[in-house]
Amino acid sequence: MAASIDVVLRKLDDNRQHALDRLFALLAIPSISTDPAYQGECARAAEWLCAELKAIGFDASVRPTAGRPMVVGHAKAARRDVPHVLFYGHYDVQPADPRDLWESDPFVPRLVEGPQGQKIVARGASDDKGQVMTFLEACRAFVESGGLPCDVTVLFEGEEETGSPSLPAFLAENGKELAADVALVCDTGMWNRETPAITTMLRGLLLEEIVVHGPNRDLHSGMFGGAAINPIRVLSRMIADLHDAQGRVAVPGFYEGVEELPEEVAAQWRALDFDEVGFLRDVGLATPAGEPDRSLLEQIWSRPTCDVNGILGGYTGAGSKTVLPAQASAKVSFRLVGRQDPDRIRERFRAFVRERLHPDCRLEFLSHGGSPALQLPVASEALTRARRALHQEWGREPVLAGCGGSIPIVGAFKRDLRMDALMIGFALDDDRIHSPNEKYELASFYKGARSWARILNALAL
Amino acid sequence: MAASIDVVLRKLDDNRQHALDRLFALLAIPSISTDPAYQGECARAAEWLCAELKAIGFDASVRPTAGRPMVVGHAKAARRDVPHVLFYGHYDVQPADPRDLWESDPFVPRLVEGPQGQKIVARGASDDKGQVMTFLEACRAFVESGGLPCDVTVLFEGEEETGSPSLPAFLAENGKELAADVALVCDTGMWNRETPAITTMLRGLLLEEIVVHGPNRDLHSGMFGGAAINPIRVLSRMIADLHDAQGRVAVPGFYEGVEELPEEVAAQWRALDFDEVGFLRDVGLATPAGEPDRSLLEQIWSRPTCDVNGILGGYTGAGSKTVLPAQASAKVSFRLVGRQDPDRIRERFRAFVRERLHPDCRLEFLSHGGSPALQLPVASEALTRARRALHQEWGREPVLAGCGGSIPIVGAFKRDLRMDALMIGFALDDDRIHSPNEKYELASFYKGARSWARILNALAL
Repeated sequence: MAASIDVVLRKLDDNRQHALDRLFALLAIPSISTDPAYQGECARAAEWLCAELKAIGFDASVRPTAGRPMVVGHAKAARRDVPHVLFYGHYDVQPADPRDLWESDPFVPRLVEGPQGQKIVARGASDDKGQVMTFLEACRAFVESGGLPCDVTVLFEGEEETGSPSLPAFLAENGKELAADVALVCDTGMWNRETPAITTMLRGLLLEEIVVHGPNRDLHSGMFGGAAINPIRVLSRMIADLHDAQGRVAVPGFYEGVEELPEEVAAQWRALDFDEVGFLRDVGLATPAGEPDRSLLEQIWSRPTCDVNGILGGYTGAGSKTVLPAQASAKVSFRLVGRQDPDRIRERFRAFVRERLHPDCRLEFLSHGGSPALQLPVASEALTRARRALHQEWGREPVLAGCGGSIPIVGAFKRDLRMDALMIGFALDDDRIHSPNEKYELASFYKGARSWARILNALAL
Repeated sequence: MAASIDVVLRKLDDNRQHALDRLFALLAIPSISTDPAYQGECARAAEWLCAELKAIGFDASVRPTAGRPMVVGHAKAARRDVPHVLFYGHYDVQPADPRDLWESDPFVPRLVEGPQGQKIVARGASDDKGQVMTFLEACRAFVESGGLPCDVTVLFEGEEETGSPSLPAFLAENGKELAADVALVCDTGMWNRETPAITTMLRGLLLEEIVVHGPNRDLHSGMFGGAAINPIRVLSRMIADLHDAQGRVAVPGFYEGVEELPEEVAAQWRALDFDEVGFLRDVGLATPAGEPDRSLLEQIWSRPTCDVNGILGGYTGAGSKTVLPAQASAKVSFRLVGRQDPDRIRERFRAFVRERLHPDCRLEFLSHGGSPALQLPVASEALTRARRALHQEWGREPVLAGCGGSIPIVGAFKRDLRMDALMIGFALDDDRIHSPNEKYELASFYKGARSWARILNALAL
C-alpha cells in the first residue's frame, strides 16, 4: 500500500539537510556538456544519478549514446493498476564562463542569505539539477514511507544544453521502454515566488527561408538602376506585407486553427499582475508590437506570430557600393498556436510570397523545419489533479501558463511517444540560468519536493 | 595662323602608321595602377606621355602626387583670343587578370582582323590610352600643319582605375593652372559603330544609409516574438514604400527639379534603334522595372531612381536562428537628374523614413555623399559646334546621350573649376574594357583623331 501523503511530507521536512547534501554533491560535479574536456564529469554525474536511483530502489542504468550518456530508471508503485509517469530532466549544465563574475566557485555550491530567504548558488542549481532532485527526493520519501503511488520511469539526459543531438535516436530505439501515461517535465518555472505554474501551451515553430533572384549577376546601379528590377525591393515588399498596420499577420488563412483561450484561463491571465511595462523596459522597449486587442501575455503565450530573423542582400560592408544585387534573402519564422498546421501555413506563406514576385524575379524556398503547437487541454484529468496538488502546497491556484518558445523534449514526447507532458518546475525568473551566480531558492527546492509528492499522490488517487 | 582643317585631316591620314606605332608604344607599358608592383610602369607611362607632349611643343611636366603622378601640358594656339580647352584622360589601366583568357599578351599590342574591320587588341586600348592618343594625334597634326586652333591644356592622371584618390587635392592646388573655357573628356563611347555620341547628361548620386535600432539587444523570438518590435519589419516597410506600384519613387517632392527632355533630344532618342530587349536579356531580365510611361533609355539616362544597394539584419548564416535582432540596416542610393538637389532629397528621404518609424525604434542615418546631376544645355555653343564637327566627320548627327552612372572627373571639373565638360569618345560597347581581350577599333582610333581635329577647329571658329 502507498504511504499516506502526510507521512511522506513529514519525511521530506525531516530529511531536508540530507536532501540538500545530496543536491550539493551533484552540483559539485562540473558536468558541462558542450566542452569535451568535461566529458568524464558528465559520465560521473550520470553514474551519480544512477547510484541515487538504485539507492531508492529503482532499476536504473547508464545508457551510452554517441554523445553523453542517458540515465534510465524504473520503479514500480506499491500497488498495481496505478498511473505510470515518465519524469524527464537533464544533468548537464552550461559552462560557467566568465568565471571572474562568479562570487564563488560555481562548482562549490553554497547557501547564501538573500532578502527573501536562503538560496543555493552554483552552476546548475536551477537548470536543472535542483529541479531534478526535487522529484528524486519526493520519490525517496515515498519509498522510505512504504512505497511509490505511481509507477515511475525517469529519463535524464546529458545533452540538453547542446541541443539534445542523441535524444531522437534514443527515443526511437527505446520508445516502448519509456512509454507512460503522462510525462512530467521539470524544466520550467513558477509564475512568481508565491505562485506555482503549470505550462500547458507551447507555441509551435515554422522556419522558412526565401531567396529572391533577379538579374543573373550583380549590376552597376548607375548603368542599370531604374531599368533592372532590384531583388531587395521585391523582398522588402514581401516582408512589409506580412503584417498589416495593426500588427496582425496578413497571410490569408494564417489564423485558421487559432483558438480563443478557455475563459477560465483568460480570466486567470487577466487577474495576473503581469508587469508589461517592466517586461519591455528590460529590453529597451515600451510598446507591445503585436495585435493591439491582445494583452502582452497573450501576444507571447497564446497568439501566433511572424518574425523575420534575418535579411541579407547586396553590399553590407562599410561605406557604399552602387551595386544592384542579383539576389536577396530572408529567414522568416512563425510561432504557431492551437491547431495551426505548419504544412498548410508553409504553403500559404509561399503562395503569399509568390503573389508578390516581380515577373523578372525567381523564388527559391528553403525549409528549416516546422512543428505544431503543443497544448494540454484544461479539462485533462492529469492537469486537474496536478493543479489541485499545487494549490494544496502553495495555497494559491497555479497559473496555467503559456511558453512562447519551444521545449523540444515535449514535442518529441508527443510526436514519438504519443504522450502529453505536464510541465511543472519551481525556477524563478531571476534564477540567472546560463549566467554567473546561478541560484535556486531553498524554498523552491523544499517546496518543490513537497509539490511533486503531492502531485504523484494526486495522480494515483 | 592656324592650319586649315583640310590640311590637318590630310596629315592625319598620311601619318596613320606612325600614330599607330606611338599608340602601340604606350600600350606596351603595363601601367596598372592598383598593383604596387607596377608603380614604376605607371611612372614610365607618365614620362612617355610627357615626352610626347614636349615633342609636339607642349610645355609639359610630370607632377608627383601621393600616388601615381599626373602629367600636365600647355600649348598656345597659333593666334590669340581663341578658346582654351582642358583635355582630360588617364594613362593607367586595369589589371589584365585572368591572363589565360587573353588570346595574346595583353601588353604586346597587335592588330586583329575582325568581321567589321581591324581592331587594336591590348589592355588599355580602349580604356583609355587609345582615346587619349586620338586627341594627341589631332594636336600633333595641327602643330605640324602650322599651329593649334585653340589654347590647349592636357591633364592625364594615373589613378582613374583606383578611384582617383590624389585628384581632388591636385585640382584644389592647381585649379588656376588648369582652368579653361571648356573641358574635353574622352572616357566615353559612340552610340554604335556608325554613330558618334556626345554625353550631355550624367546622373547625380545620393548615398544614404539607415540603421533601425529596436530592442537593446538581440532577443529570443520565442520569448519576445509578438510583443517586441522587429527592426527588420520596420525597415522592410520603409524600403517597400520607397516605390509605388508603378515603380515611381514615392518620397514626396522627389521629382522636384526633374526636367522633361528637350524635344529635340526626346525625338532623337525615340528614333534610336535601342535594343531594350537585348539590353535586359544580357542580364537575365525581360521587364523594365522603372516608370512604365518612360522608355528604357529614359529610365537609365534621364530619369531619377532609387535603389537599395544592401540590406542586413539578424542572422544570415546557414540554417535558422530564432533571433529577434536589435537592429537592421540598408544602404539606399538615388540617381539624380536635372536640378534635383541632393541635400533636399536627403532631408525628404529622411523625413519619409522617420514617418515610418515604430515608436519603439530609433533611427541612425549615415551619409556616404551626394552630388547633383550634370547637364550640358543643348543650346550650349560648345555643344553646337562639337555636334557639327562630329556630323561632318561621321555623316550622321551625333546622339546626345545620357549616362546613368557618374564620371567623377566631370563633377570635379564642374564643382572645383566651374567648368562644363564635353564628353566625347569613340569606344564601342563591345570593347571589353576591364575584361580579357580588350580592343579598340582601328576606325575609332583614326576617325577619333580626325573628329578631335574637327572639334578643335570648330571650337575656334
